Order: sequence, then structure tokens, then C-alpha cells
Amino acid sequence: MTELRTLKVALLGCGNVGAQVARILIEDADTLAARAGAKLQLSGIAVRNVHAQRDVDLPQELFTTDADTLVKDADLVIELMGGIEPARTLILSALRNGACVVTGNKALVAQDGPTLHEEADKAGVQLSYEAAVAGAIPILRPIRDSLAGDRITRVLGIVNGTTNFILDQMDTTGAQFADALAEAQRLGYAEADPTADVEGHDAAAKAAILASLSFHTRFALENVHCEGITSVTAADIAAAKDAGFVIKLLAIAEKLNVADTETGGGEGVSVRVHPTLLPREHPLAAVHGAFNAVFIEAENAGELMFYGQGAGGTPTASAVLGDLVSAARSLVLGGPGRTETTTGQVSALPIDAAVTSYYIGLDVADQPGVLARIAQLFAEHGVSIEIMRQTIHRDAESNVESAELRIVTHRASEAALAATVEAVKGLDVINSVTSVLRVEGV
Amino acid sequence: MTELRTLKVALLGCGNVGAQVARILIEDADTLAARAGAKLQLSGIAVRNVHAQRDVDLPQELFTTDADTLVKDADLVIELMGGIEPARTLILSALRNGACVVTGNKALVAQDGPTLHEEADKAGVQLSYEAAVAGAIPILRPIRDSLAGDRITRVLGIVNGTTNFILDQMDTTGAQFADALAEAQRLGYAEADPTADVEGHDAAAKAAILASLSFHTRFALENVHCEGITSVTAADIAAAKDAGFVIKLLAIAEKLNVADTETGGGEGVSVRVHPTLLPREHPLAAVHGAFNAVFIEAENAGELMFYGQGAGGTPTASAVLGDLVSAARSLVLGGPGRTETTTGQVSALPIDAAVTSYYIGLDVADQPGVLARIAQLFAEHGVSIEIMRQTIHRDAESNVESAELRIVTHRASEAALAATVEAVKGLDVINSVTSVLRVEGV
Repeated sequence: MTELRTLKVALLGCGNVGAQVARILIEDADTLAARAGAKLQLSGIAVRNVHAQRDVDLPQELFTTDADTLVKDADLVIELMGGIEPARTLILSALRNGACVVTGNKALVAQDGPTLHEEADKAGVQLSYEAAVAGAIPILRPIRDSLAGDRITRVLGIVNGTTNFILDQMDTTGAQFADALAEAQRLGYAEADPTADVEGHDAAAKAAILASLSFHTRFALENVHCEGITSVTAADIAAAKDAGFVIKLLAIAEKLNVADTETGGGEGVSVRVHPTLLPREHPLAAVHGAFNAVFIEAENAGELMFYGQGAGGTPTASAVLGDLVSAARSLVLGGPGRTETTTGQVSALPIDAAVTSYYIGLDVADQPGVLARIAQLFAEHGVSIEIMRQTIHRDAESNVESAELRIVTHRASEAALAATVEAVKGLDVINSVTSVLRVEGV
Repeated sequence: MTELRTLKVALLGCGNVGAQVARILIEDADTLAARAGAKLQLSGIAVRNVHAQRDVDLPQELFTTDADTLVKDADLVIELMGGIEPARTLILSALRNGACVVTGNKALVAQDGPTLHEEADKAGVQLSYEAAVAGAIPILRPIRDSLAGDRITRVLGIVNGTTNFILDQMDTTGAQFADALAEAQRLGYAEADPTADVEGHDAAAKAAILASLSFHTRFALENVHCEGITSVTAADIAAAKDAGFVIKLLAIAEKLNVADTETGGGEGVSVRVHPTLLPREHPLAAVHGAFNAVFIEAENAGELMFYGQGAGGTPTASAVLGDLVSAARSLVLGGPGRTETTTGQVSALPIDAAVTSYYIGLDVADQPGVLARIAQLFAEHGVSIEIMRQTIHRDAESNVESAELRIVTHRASEAALAATVEAVKGLDVINSVTSVLRVEGV
């Protein structure tokens, strides 16, 4: 057997994922070398505090605080520090030096993808970030390579394990949001400050990345309409369940042709994150706990789903190392790195131009003719009703009757729906609008 | 924009998939050119009869019976003829000419993979066959590239839509095999001669390919133990359903360490196709109709599942075109094609060394002490029982009682199980062994 060349690997950051990447690089060195066609030598791990406690026992001499020097001497750089700076500067410096870069930094890729890609293309090296979206699930490479000869029309992703765990708990146990969040925190699925997860920011960064790859056009974080799950109530979940739906936080990217709207529409891609009702028989409805899944609709391939663990040190390390071995192979074989194509010409649509179905819950007066008046109002706003169901409640003591009205619409624009809801609120027979939620998969 | 170079694409075969590939190459020429970085010009379609009726209206001048000449002049060759010859000779000739080859020919790849790969490596060109396994589902590329830094331990695949449709029908409607097969034939999911599907031969070729990629070792068709679904009865399905299981035809490849068996074991990979009981809550149990799915367990990534359409002209064409665009990009960028690694050293295990759980249905005499005697016999053969359930039936007219015994074992070797079943048959209290089925996912 010929002697394999050695490639130096610099690791930036040694948290949950980084520590597992370092462990596997050391423990599985022989296997990785055989797969890559080169020895992958971990040359150092840049951290803020070289004496910090780690999850994994690693050789102390690998640690350094001097990330700059480490990067300058590396063939392959793995960035797992997170945040924008100094990650951005270090990655750009690595690319300029001709090193391939593997990162799991979704915020940075969503914000600065074009700059990073431009630098990688200029240097002819690979920039890859499979770990940035849906952890262990191979999703970016299949979209980029396997579906390169197809046209993706829609992507629906459960890409945040924390919120899926919380919504799944609420669905299973009937818990309120606050209690389900507390349980997620107790089990380590949610952080002490859960804002980035529960407000949808994490999912929004992943939505921007998925949309960019799926539609061959760079979408930035500001193109993503984002709503979190903090306002989803146990009553919403119960009503959805009763109607045969489950509520999931979805990252959605879909091509729409809404040229006839007056809301800045036209052909384009709607990229958004929001709580969404899905029929219980939809493949994504069966994704429980902290698992992730991405459902793709393509013109030729039809429906595809990719399912697996979306977070966790070891699963995410698998995605990082897959990218690393691919990048190493490209260095060994020679030739420029495989890059994404950005040949698309589609624009990001504002949320008002999004077209979807809606679930609307109303607390209404129990009077004759109420349904007719509401139906009339929907018709006037061009929103077609698919299902309308009224449930009468009678308070046993007071003998007062109240009525609950649940409406599922056909596909309509956000703008038309918003106008309809405004008008409905003005009706004297409406006590309150209890929920307005979007529906997919019907 | 700089002028793109033109790559000549030769298509061999124009059946269900080939006709769609031709259509998309013509209709989506601009999109494909942008993705590939080169114009993909369909230079000709080799068929046996140039005047045959096609599913798609294609320019008559593209058709030729002279495949040899077409291949000699091509940069990219798509082989969708099926069968071993002349496909094999044409592919080898294309590779020797420096053309990249895309094929959907599972039988050929399973039988002659090593020869084809050797030729592709020698020429430094890509040989890819995503369409050969699970149709539209991107599965080979994720295994090869995305999981390159991980160690796959087990693959369970529903890779034959015909048999999944038949078993799903039997499960849903209670139909017998023959009726479900007739229904599948009526709907076009099964061929007039369904042998290759229902006897598991199609799944076996795919199992060999999945095992080869997953364990970085070439496994041939003769390494695959294959049992079809023709002997699965409505009673088997009903009993499985009653016990919380569903029966699926699975292609299985798993690493086992059975060094302690006397059956030719040792560390190795068991590759097999057989009807298998899966718990109803297993992700694969929810794969209905003619859909396919591949479930992967890897050391670091954990559990992954890939789901989608496993057959059909247009979905399979998506996989072919994904490979084609990737191959074209490699020609445009230069550098050798990406190849598989065959660094594994694992051997194929004989079926006797396979280790799994079993479901055994027995028709037994309703006498005291029968359960104890059977349990004793299992213990003597080293097969541990997980669940044992006896149901007594009393014939209302004759007043004769019969007892049905259902046993689910813990994991045991095929050899131990076979010996146990033989011994059980010899007991005087046993009327018959009604079914022996393997169980996964417990």
C-alpha cells in the first residue's frame, strides 16, 4: 500500500459537537484515512479557555487560543464556534489560504453565504455545511447534487428539535406551552434562554439555507418571515387534534405564482417559519420528540422525506465528518471543489403574497344567521371556505349558550386572509377570534 | 455570459424511464445547462425498433439501432436498457472512451459492479446509478458521501414497490396474496410475470448494492439470501396485526459479530431479503402502497430514514438526471470522477449466521404442560423467548378445543432457530408449525 499523504485539520471550537468531532477524528483515524484517501491529522483545537472542562477527554496539547495561526497552517478547517465573529474572519482567512472549510454555523451561512461562497469559488476549494441544517440528516447534499436535474417546488421542514419536542409534548399530554418548555429545559432539549428556538430564529436561518439551495438563488435571513410558537396554546392544539390536525413549527420554502395579487406578488419564492397545522396522516405528522425531518416536493421526483436526529453532539459530528471526508477527497483527487449553483432568478416574496390554507377559530354568539353572515364575509373577501363546523356549549349552571366556530379555508393569500379576519372581528356577533393558524399538506 | 461548451449525451433504451429522461433533457435544456455548466445535447437514442410506439412524443431523427456508434461519440452515456448484455459491453466501451456513465441497471451493477468500477477508475470518469435503488429517493449518494465519516451498522430497506403494495393491500383489506397480486397487476404496479418482484430477486440486487456502499466492500448477488413473499398468507398478516406488527419485504444489510457460532460466522455482514415483521410504530411500518423507504442506523448519526417514490418513469428520471448533472459538472470542472471507496474488509455471512428475532406460530394440542415442554425445548437450543401467547379456540359444534401458540423470540441465530423449529415439529403435542417469520425493529 502506498503511503498516504497527511492533511492537517484545524478545529475551531470545542463545545458539544466539536468535542465529538475531535474524539472521532482521533479514535477512527484509520477508517477516516481509508475513506478520505489521506490521513486526517487533527493539528489543533482553538478555544477561548484551554483549561475549560470538556465532555470528552482530549490531549491537552491540542488546545490553543491562537486560532489565526492554527488556521494558517491547515488544509482543512472545521468551524464550530458559532456566532458571526470571529468565525467569519477565520473562515474567510482559511478559504483565502486554499483550505477547505466545513462549518455548522447556520447563522453565519444564512447571513453571509454569498460572501463565503464567492471566496471559496475564487480559491477553488470546498465550503460545506451539512451540519447547519437538520443535524445528522443528509439533506443539503441530496438537494444540491441528487436533485440537480429536477425542479423543487416546495420544502417543508421540521428543523428545530426543541420546538418539535415542545409541540409534541403539548399534543401528547395536553400541557400548556410554559409547562412543555419547562419539561424540555429539564431534559436538556431547550436552553435556559430558549428565545432563538421558540421564537423561530434558529429555524429561520435554516429556512434561508434550504431555500437558497432548493431554488438556486441566495435568500438571506431578512427574506424569511418568522413566527415562533410562544403563542400556541393548549386550546389551539386540542382544537387542531379534534379536527384531525397536528401543529408543527415548519420552515417552508415554496415557489408561488401570485402574479394576480396586488400585494407585491408575482412569481417568486415564499420563505417562512410559522406554526402550521398538518393532517395527522401527513408523513411529517409522525415526526415526534426532538427528531427532525425535511419533506420535499419536486416536479419529477414527487414527494421525498428525509428523517433523523436534528441535534446532539455525536449525530451532528457525523454530518461534519461526512463533509470533511468529502473535502479531503477533493483535495486528494485534485480539481476544484464542488460548489452550489446560483442560476435561479426567483425573488423572495413578502409574507402578504404567501398563499396557503388557514384554520380560524371563532367564539361567536349563538344566534340564527351567524354562519350565513360569516360565510358571506369570507366570500366578499375572496376567501373560499372548505370546512365550517359549529359546536354549541351550554353552561349547566347559567344555562347560557356559547358557540365555537372552526373554519378551514381553501388556499388564499395572506393579504386576503388578514383583511377577512379584520372584517370578521368587526361583526357584532363575534365575541373573539380565538386562533388563526396556517395549514399545509391538505 | 460566456458560451457554454456542449456535452453529447447518448441514451440507450427508451422505455418507461428512458422516454421521460429524453423528454426532460429536451424540455428543460436551459435549466439543466445552467445547473451542469454545460449544454447537455441529446445526441441520440439507441433502441431495438426505431418505429416502436413510445409514451412520449420525441423527434424521430434521434432514434437509432446503432448503439455502438452512438456510444463512441458521447461524453455522457445513460444506460436504461436493463439486462446484462448488450448493456454491459456498451457501458464498458463508453467508460474506455472516457465517457461518464449513468445507469439504472441494478441487475448489472449487482452482478458486475467490480468490473464496471475498475474500468471507471482506470478512465478517471464517473459511474453512477442512483436510479438503480429506490427510484427517486436520493440514497446511494448520501450513503457514499454524507455518511463517509460515519460507520453504518444496519440498513433496512423497503426497495420494491410491487411487494410493498401487495403486502399493504393484504394488511389493509385482509386479502390473500393471489388477490392482492391480481389487484397490483390490474393497477399496473405488478408485471404480467411478477416473478422478479414477488420472489425478491429485484430487492436482492438492490440489497447487494446497498450493502456494498454501506460497508465499503463489494457484495455480489450470490452473497444475498433471498426469500420472496409468495408464501405469506392472510393468516400470517392477521396474526402479525393482532400482535402489533406489520409484514414488509425488507432488504437487510447489517454488521454482525457472531464469532461464537459454529456456523461459519465471525465478524461480517449479513445481506438478506425476506418478509419481516416490524412493530407498527416503526418508521418503516408507515410506508404504504408502492412507496419505498430506506432506514439506516449509523454509529454516530443514529437513525435516519429516506422516503419517496421507488419507481415510475418520471420519478426515476429525476434520479438519472441528478447523476447526469453531477457527471457533467465533473467533466466541466475537470479532475477525476468521484468514486466509491472499497476499504472495508468484511466478509458476507451465510444466512445461518444471521441473528434476528423470530415470530413462530404453532397449532398445538390443548393439554396441560404443553407450554412448559415447548419453552423447555427453546431453552435447550439456546433460543430465549420474549413473548408467548396462547389462544384457545373451541369449535361450537364439535366442542373440540384447539390452541394457537404465538412466540416472539429474543435475537437468535438462524441456525439455532432452525434447529429449534425442527425439534418442535417432533413434539407429539404439535399439530403444525403455521408460520416462522423474522422480526426486526424490536
